[in-house]
Amino acid sequence: MSEKFTKLKSLISEVTDLNAAQALLEWDQQTYMPSGGAEVRGHQLATLGSLTHQKFTAEEVGILIEDLKKEFASADVDSDDARYLKVLSKDYDKATKIPSEYVAEFTRLTAQGHESWAKAREASDFSIFQADLEKIVDMRKEYVGFFPPADHPYDTLLDEFEPGMKTAEVQEIFGVLRERQVELLKNIADAKQVDDSFMHVNYPEKQQWDFGVEVATAFGYDWKRGRQDKSVHPFTTSFGISDVRITTRFMEDFFPSALFGTMHEAGHGLYEMGVNQAYERTPLNSGASLGVHESQSRLWENLVGRSMPFWEHFYPRLQETFPTQLGNIALPNFYNGINKVEPSLIRVEADEATYNMHIMLRLELEIAMIEGSVAIKDLPELWKSKFEEYLGITPPDDAQGVLQDIHWSFGGLGYFSTYALGNLISVQLWEKINEAIPDLDEQLRQGKFGALLNWLRENIHIFGRKYEPQELVQKVTGSKITPEPYLRYLEGKYSEIYGL
Amino acid sequence: MSEKFTKLKSLISEVTDLNAAQALLEWDQQTYMPSGGAEVRGHQLATLGSLTHQKFTAEEVGILIEDLKKEFASADVDSDDARYLKVLSKDYDKATKIPSEYVAEFTRLTAQGHESWAKAREASDFSIFQADLEKIVDMRKEYVGFFPPADHPYDTLLDEFEPGMKTAEVQEIFGVLRERQVELLKNIADAKQVDDSFMHVNYPEKQQWDFGVEVATAFGYDWKRGRQDKSVHPFTTSFGISDVRITTRFMEDFFPSALFGTMHEAGHGLYEMGVNQAYERTPLNSGASLGVHESQSRLWENLVGRSMPFWEHFYPRLQETFPTQLGNIALPNFYNGINKVEPSLIRVEADEATYNMHIMLRLELEIAMIEGSVAIKDLPELWKSKFEEYLGITPPDDAQGVLQDIHWSFGGLGYFSTYALGNLISVQLWEKINEAIPDLDEQLRQGKFGALLNWLRENIHIFGRKYEPQELVQKVTGSKITPEPYLRYLEGKYSEIYGL
Repeated sequence: MSEKFTKLKSLISEVTDLNAAQALLEWDQQTYMPSGGAEVRGHQLATLGSLTHQKFTAEEVGILIEDLKKEFASADVDSDDARYLKVLSKDYDKATKIPSEYVAEFTRLTAQGHESWAKAREASDFSIFQADLEKIVDMRKEYVGFFPPADHPYDTLLDEFEPGMKTAEVQEIFGVLRERQVELLKNIADAKQVDDSFMHVNYPEKQQWDFGVEVATAFGYDWKRGRQDKSVHPFTTSFGISDVRITTRFMEDFFPSALFGTMHEAGHGLYEMGVNQAYERTPLNSGASLGVHESQSRLWENLVGRSMPFWEHFYPRLQETFPTQLGNIALPNFYNGINKVEPSLIRVEADEATYNMHIMLRLELEIAMIEGSVAIKDLPELWKSKFEEYLGITPPDDAQGVLQDIHWSFGGLGYFSTYALGNLISVQLWEKINEAIPDLDEQLRQGKFGALLNWLRENIHIFGRKYEPQELVQKVTGSKITPEPYLRYLEGKYSEIYGL
Repeated sequence: MSEKFTKLKSLISEVTDLNAAQALLEWDQQTYMPSGGAEVRGHQLATLGSLTHQKFTAEEVGILIEDLKKEFASADVDSDDARYLKVLSKDYDKATKIPSEYVAEFTRLTAQGHESWAKAREASDFSIFQADLEKIVDMRKEYVGFFPPADHPYDTLLDEFEPGMKTAEVQEIFGVLRERQVELLKNIADAKQVDDSFMHVNYPEKQQWDFGVEVATAFGYDWKRGRQDKSVHPFTTSFGISDVRITTRFMEDFFPSALFGTMHEAGHGLYEMGVNQAYERTPLNSGASLGVHESQSRLWENLVGRSMPFWEHFYPRLQETFPTQLGNIALPNFYNGINKVEPSLIRVEADEATYNMHIMLRLELEIAMIEGSVAIKDLPELWKSKFEEYLGITPPDDAQGVLQDIHWSFGGLGYFSTYALGNLISVQLWEKINEAIPDLDEQLRQGKFGALLNWLRENIHIFGRKYEPQELVQKVTGSKITPEPYLRYLEGKYSEIYGL
């Protein structure tokens, strides 16, 4: 390795150390920090953030990258070092293209926007938030302008979370998805409904915790390299490949929240734990994209965790854990209950059949906002009419409609689609896995997840951020992201449950 | 405030943010970090540490300090700003006087020393550690040489933990203390012994935890600005005046460990929580010295927590919590049990009458090492003979003798005396408090700690690091640190318990 590369790697490993420290400050804020600590924690995060940015965007880093690009001109483009340089160069480019005045103004605006959004939601009155959202969208457009023109202005925002992905690709995929999922939902609505009342009785937290840990352990989550804590919003975070933590939350009158939440976060965690150890303290650590990350969490949560083979093994254990709650519920009824489809106003905790609809609605609105093809003031009505079209129910007010998510208030435009893409990728992989492990169902029926995890490690996890998402999906499944497998899966699963 | 001072304060507040982040990485390492995280955490701590050092020792900081010293030449030396500058200037001086080559070499040596110490203790063979300890002591002498000559070379080491304190002062105090404590211990050994067998039955952890929390809450520990967690070695840490955390550990067959440990750490915590809020993110935050800090922990642990008035209030609650363990133990027997004097080989968990003896022994050896008046190879024998003289028992081997503490292996010479000084200060304050609050005993009997805490806040906590320890003790008690009050207290207390 050239001296320059050694120098660059050393500088960047320090940046990753500082990022990890920042992630720990945030993890602590969400899990254990006493409320009194909030103010000074804000200062600590700001100081560490600006110092890290300063260190990362130093001219020295840029010069080393440019020099090394020349050195690497004739190198194997697929080598770890070449990919290191490629990923880093893109990160550096993004970090240095944004003027610090823009960052300062955007921080100020979104703090204000967050406040007006909260007030607007409280009063269920979109007009309170409207002016700030207009400014936020304008600033996101300004952000797009810092980068070379793309096919579509939304591409630039999407690229932050789904590197290399194009708006047109997403639109094409979602076009197919929308039509068939709307159709499926109509058929389900007309069918005999499922009884899930057993899920809404009291399930004590302690037993929920223990059962969740048992399942995560069976999946292969390594407690020597991770841990689970409680937080208001569940998340996964990593301070290194051998320190990957998940969080969960409990609803004592709705056990699926914690249990499937733990499976979901364990799926994210297994991804982070499976990254090539050689990528520690490099930009190649972490996942290929939010979409690929979500494919891992959704695979364990839904394709494993909401499947019949999984519960053929685990249901007796769950009944043992909750004898009064589940003793009289037969497995098929349990299975139907945890897979019940029920359009709801709120995205969070939505079932597999309706979840993507929430996402597509938001994506369409976001693209329209960035294109300028919709006026911000028209969003509430547009939300209502689309919601009715996609989910068959109408939000009674703005609070439960266009104002329900916090994301736009802090300028988070560009990543909603990754949730739906994750669902699609998970099933694309699942079909491949079933080819590679023909007796997978039988293994699940025996509570064995080793072969499954190994496949994921070898084909997905190990690569970290080395490949872009479309590249990785193509490499592993032979095609880019496509909606067909997911639709096959959804239609098959729900036809059986609802007798369609 | 001058522009320069504003600039300096802004720079330093960022340094305190980075120090806080480092403290959180360490807290997490001791409480929740999975074992797998250790390696990468080491990198994170090193990176953050060196970056913080770099930022703090920047030339710009030094120039601002020198310029401001001139500006402040005629200012009130007792103003917060003047004290800010004084404390900072001393910190800066210490941080910049040490060449980075020395730091690197010392880090290397102590890593090696720690390893050879662990091996030596394992084999109970001092000779394995001897050569490294010799080098460590040589490097501590070299360290002393970076500073202007003091009255005694050990002064420079002591000053890190007890600013302004002189070796001669400590020796004088300890000279008085040693003689009278040895005498007291002899008298106790000849008296009828106390039965504490009730302390060694099973006390379930959960009830221990709850009772400790109840006591800390009664003391005034603010859970909105703090929390308690478990760790192998109990400690207190602060990430800001409103985020001060304590830890504890549990022995199910020896409840005093957790209970008095929680009182002890809560005492440290109350100090940190009571610092003037205006000192947040400044060098004036935290305590005056380790000794003054220890005076606060020992005051709550011993003067309150091992007193009869305290237990007149709390013992019925403790009996309620542990009915089978304590139901048949009368309060006087309980009180005698928790105050039992028993010379032990190990310092940790030592009683009030023997604790200082352990400390004095170490201090004398440390001073002799730094003076060069003892050869390192003679330490094991010296330890044994002094131990016999001070505590009346003889360590059977080096592992339980000279090798028992980890401190020297990482070069920690200079702070053992602060533990004993803390005991002395605590009683000096206690006498003053009893003058100021004549019915203090009666308040304790009613479980009321408000007036006590207020006194400590107004006279000690609020000042943070503004005053040096001797200055603070003088200001509050009218005299410098003196052993008389402590000896009066010890002799009084144990005469009663042991009928001397």
